[in-house]
Amino acid sequence: MSHFKQTDHIESKELFPGFHARMIHTDGLTIVYFDIKAGSILPEHHHIHEQVTNVLEGTLELTVDGETFACTPGTVVTMPPHAPHSGRALTDCKVIDVFRPVREDYK
Amino acid sequence: MSHFKQTDHIESKELFPGFHARMIHTDGLTIVYFDIKAGSILPEHHHIHEQVTNVLEGTLELTVDGETFACTPGTVVTMPPHAPHSGRALTDCKVIDVFRPVREDYK
Repeated sequence: MSHFKQTDHIESKELFPGFHARMIHTDGLTIVYFDIKAGSILPEHHHIHEQVTNVLEGTLELTVDGETFACTPGTVVTMPPHAPHSGRALTDCKVIDVFRPVREDYK
Repeated sequence: MSHFKQTDHIESKELFPGFHARMIHTDGLTIVYFDIKAGSILPEHHHIHEQVTNVLEGTLELTVDGETFACTPGTVVTMPPHAPHSGRALTDCKVIDVFRPVREDYK
């Protein structure tokens, strides 16, 4: 299989209402390219996976372990395993999420 | 320590000539925001870390395990541990690299 993938060739899945995901799974990681519609809500949840959220476009308000921040391009959010987190998109957003280990539940 | 970091507050290090890196290390991952100058060369190398390269801006020609591709915004490059890789920036580029496990050598 090629080492090179084009995200615009990947089928999008709506993981939460308004959260459109294109995903790449490797042996140890899941990378998710999110297009998020303004006003969409991420309900509080947690998981065994470490997560790093990279905001590329827009403003995404996130709450992690009780700490809230309006994330803009250049914000990186580090979430340890099991950290409760929630959010809402204040505008349309583009985000790259990194999960370790693989999100088997997203396959 | 806060879960929220601003990449523009992170000091940049020149890891290879023309490859300016701002890094975030977690327990299990290193995330590198690269600003790469047009014409810069990445000499062939390999490492124990799995790597995923996300091209955000510009054109970055990469060769992985003998396969060459001119990566543009939306290209994702998956490199298993020990895969030899090299490259050159055909234009100025912005890239997010993900490494698993942590790049202790970059700390």
